[in-house]
Amino acid sequence: MRVNGIAYRTVWLDGSTVKMVDQRQLPFAFAIASLPTCQDTAEAIRNMTVRGAGAIGVAAGFAVAQAALTASAETFEETVAQAASTIRSTRPTAQNLFYAVDRVMAAMTTAGSMADRREAAVKAAQAIADEDAEAARRIGEAGQPLLPDPAHVLTHCNAGWLAFADWGTALSPVYCAHRAGRRVSVYATETRPRGQGARLTAWELTQEGIACTLIADTAVGHLMRQGAVNIVIVGADRIAANGDVANKIGTYQLAVLAKTHGIPFYVAAPTMTIDWHCPSGAAIPIEERSGDEVCWVDGETEDGRRQRVRVTAQVAVRNWAFDVTPASYITGLITEGGVIAADTAAIGGLVQRAVSAAGSGRR
Amino acid sequence: MRVNGIAYRTVWLDGSTVKMVDQRQLPFAFAIASLPTCQDTAEAIRNMTVRGAGAIGVAAGFAVAQAALTASAETFEETVAQAASTIRSTRPTAQNLFYAVDRVMAAMTTAGSMADRREAAVKAAQAIADEDAEAARRIGEAGQPLLPDPAHVLTHCNAGWLAFADWGTALSPVYCAHRAGRRVSVYATETRPRGQGARLTAWELTQEGIACTLIADTAVGHLMRQGAVNIVIVGADRIAANGDVANKIGTYQLAVLAKTHGIPFYVAAPTMTIDWHCPSGAAIPIEERSGDEVCWVDGETEDGRRQRVRVTAQVAVRNWAFDVTPASYITGLITEGGVIAADTAAIGGLVQRAVSAAGSGRR
Repeated sequence: MRVNGIAYRTVWLDGSTVKMVDQRQLPFAFAIASLPTCQDTAEAIRNMTVRGAGAIGVAAGFAVAQAALTASAETFEETVAQAASTIRSTRPTAQNLFYAVDRVMAAMTTAGSMADRREAAVKAAQAIADEDAEAARRIGEAGQPLLPDPAHVLTHCNAGWLAFADWGTALSPVYCAHRAGRRVSVYATETRPRGQGARLTAWELTQEGIACTLIADTAVGHLMRQGAVNIVIVGADRIAANGDVANKIGTYQLAVLAKTHGIPFYVAAPTMTIDWHCPSGAAIPIEERSGDEVCWVDGETEDGRRQRVRVTAQVAVRNWAFDVTPASYITGLITEGGVIAADTAAIGGLVQRAVSAAGSGRR
Repeated sequence: MRVNGIAYRTVWLDGSTVKMVDQRQLPFAFAIASLPTCQDTAEAIRNMTVRGAGAIGVAAGFAVAQAALTASAETFEETVAQAASTIRSTRPTAQNLFYAVDRVMAAMTTAGSMADRREAAVKAAQAIADEDAEAARRIGEAGQPLLPDPAHVLTHCNAGWLAFADWGTALSPVYCAHRAGRRVSVYATETRPRGQGARLTAWELTQEGIACTLIADTAVGHLMRQGAVNIVIVGADRIAANGDVANKIGTYQLAVLAKTHGIPFYVAAPTMTIDWHCPSGAAIPIEERSGDEVCWVDGETEDGRRQRVRVTAQVAVRNWAFDVTPASYITGLITEGGVIAADTAAIGGLVQRAVSAAGSGRR
């Protein structure tokens, strides 16, 4: 994607240095973090310099490759194993992270010399990044035909290119349609408490020159009632086998409102997000986070200083990070394997095709 | 209501000084603004030291009385007329403000000497405050039987005692139930962009010792889906003749979510809020305010300084202050004349009874 007219990925490898868009600085400053060692990259994952399932996985893969590139011949095995362990410990829940570490480690076991192993590690890590970007691009192609003309898309949180190596999921159909010259504009919800819509989605769409309008989370019903939205697309943190979707808190009420107003409601995610062993949304644990996320906000003062301020009374807070949207509210799932129904049969078919393809691809 | 154990009204007259809770300082500091002149009180209405329809009306009435108390004998007429004009110009939409100014001015026309007129003005202004508080208290009595036991009330914005002379509207049934020893707790939505739920509702309930839990506006659907709420009560800015209600942005989506989850949805407001000449919600103009309200927030730093910070990207914003909830979503209207259906017949009957009562009361 483009920032100030220059094409970027969210995370990439430059020699043995990992570079990434520093998401903690957005939208106030666009800065590239340069991480010369595997330890630096691990810390960047931990402290959320990089966030978003896909982008975390890509960073983790590069971090292992980085360890291989910089390890000395004498301690190569121990150094790389130690690095993998450090990276695994950065974030507990991101599925992509463990997948990436395992895949890069596995690539090195089949290679011979140290030089060969280094090359294999870099190749595997690069493949993860490329596949992540390619899956996201295909989600965009699959989703683009669903957009009305003109499309007035409502999205929630950030499932854009900042959350993946490139393209994103919910926003990928928007980027595809825009590049194809189709008329598309986006309403971004603020997404309290952390404001990913106001800070990240609004920023990345603006950088790509796509018309974006920010609304408070309280304005969704009024917006829909006016007929201002004709499609809703959101991302997903986990998709159960029956099509129930866990995603950022606030997604469920968007789905209820979309149904009430007869607006199609799509969830865009790579097949990797499907948890085939999870029967339904009821089995997905909902993380509850500190109330401080609601009570304190971080912003920029008029004279350009970053500052944290308390915006609420001293009061008890409940702060669930996610909610579950039942499959019955979901018009369809937009995946890199096409648009499918949010039900067990369609999801089972997709998972099976993905497993077969991965099997034949690896052989 | 009580603050730090002491009983307060939101606005009152002390000699010829108007005193009011400074709502701009809440929840960070509880301060009483002392306004020695009518001009000071007018400015306090303008700069939102006082807010909320009822409280604004009470302040406006006292401001006219204040002008009468401090005017010199030589220029009494001009001074008071000039003061009335200044007060009328402070806020353009609050119906209560014009009603209060007119009523105190009218009270002075029937009185003889300057001393008599001063007394009549103070008496009329005090009556407005007392009637506002009494209507709110009766709303509480009318609404209390609607509360389940235990009651888990969800409210939006601030329709508590800070918005009226005392008691409030949406929160008045909660205060009544609590004083009667019934089990009642409240979920307050943050109410972005201005955060009246997080800053005012959470604060005033805590002061009264009522269990209050703050949630982000995005968490309403998840909260309801868990069965954590068994009644919703909100206030109203204007009620149309057919029962459609204009209220703080976000009210409509609460009503949709309440209906989806089978939770009763009540609107609490004094009869004065009914605009009998407005046929339906479609005829209510929806004020759109500056996007800065969404982009900038005001809070308190860790070292106790008030600070404004930008929390969003540089992006277009739509910021409607109100939305309309169709009557079909409203279980009932809680008024000082009892709980009625949100339809033309019931509203017409209530308005007629109120007009008759006012007529006989004034004679």
